[in-house]
Amino acid sequence: MADTNIEGNNNPMPLWRRPGFLIRRTHQIHQTLFLKECSEYNLTPIQYGVLTGLLENPGIDQITLAREVGIDRTNVADVLQRLEKRKLVVRETAEHDRRMKLVNLTAEGRKILADMYQAMMNTQQKLLAPLNEQEQEQFLDLLVRLVNENNHLGRTDFKLKKIDM
Amino acid sequence: MADTNIEGNNNPMPLWRRPGFLIRRTHQIHQTLFLKECSEYNLTPIQYGVLTGLLENPGIDQITLAREVGIDRTNVADVLQRLEKRKLVVRETAEHDRRMKLVNLTAEGRKILADMYQAMMNTQQKLLAPLNEQEQEQFLDLLVRLVNENNHLGRTDFKLKKIDM
Repeated sequence: MADTNIEGNNNPMPLWRRPGFLIRRTHQIHQTLFLKECSEYNLTPIQYGVLTGLLENPGIDQITLAREVGIDRTNVADVLQRLEKRKLVVRETAEHDRRMKLVNLTAEGRKILADMYQAMMNTQQKLLAPLNEQEQEQFLDLLVRLVNENNHLGRTDFKLKKIDM
Repeated sequence: MADTNIEGNNNPMPLWRRPGFLIRRTHQIHQTLFLKECSEYNLTPIQYGVLTGLLENPGIDQITLAREVGIDRTNVADVLQRLEKRKLVVRETAEHDRRMKLVNLTAEGRKILADMYQAMMNTQQKLLAPLNEQEQEQFLDLLVRLVNENNHLGRTDFKLKKIDM
């Protein structure tokens, strides 16, 4: 692509150098890899993330789970409904607060996570394969800092999925 | 979150350390930032990316544009239809191949890009703000390598948007 900006000068940040663009591409590449590596299990990265969140926080309520995993309230309900249909999770109403839904993995949910673990790890390794070990560490450290220090941004106005286009 | 894995041992890669998870969060944070910074223009990051792709490749055909910007064929048609309705782009059938659609920015399309340029740059700067200048360069270099060397993955099985949940 040519590096010209609106004014016809050299563009200080052409598309292929913009972090937002690069991150979207990396995100897409990860999703493609994940779906390929994990195709036999028929779970998306988000569904897998939700199951992992439940493994790490058994009996968590639905809203807190959404926050932990970084998806919005509407999506978490959709995702859990699908996982419940497949008998991978169970939801029950909290006794102390009837509006609160508590979620747990079923034995089958734990089993699919265990079965998928190696495929998920392969995905991560393939994604990072272009970097050597030291660069991988560096990349993850920088990513963790970006997410942690910007995290409040992704959690407030959180209505992204619907307007992805 | 607890760092226990399926086997109850220390998890070598808990959710918050998995590149796929971190990249999705970063992607969401970027989208939130973009929509906030650029709200008055009412364009999504993908629409903006498509317009930038057209600025860099005037008269490009629709399919090549989709590849350049990293979205699939169905999505590019949707996005272009919306942009055409807003009179930001024009499409015409190629004379030498009636199946080919050539796309160009309108004067209005060029104007909105120029108007938005600073807001887009602010988005990128805010996203990277947690890192110092040297770390930002490092992060972008690593990202560019990840995208370039994995690019074929994101371009082949490219049907991600529909199964994002």
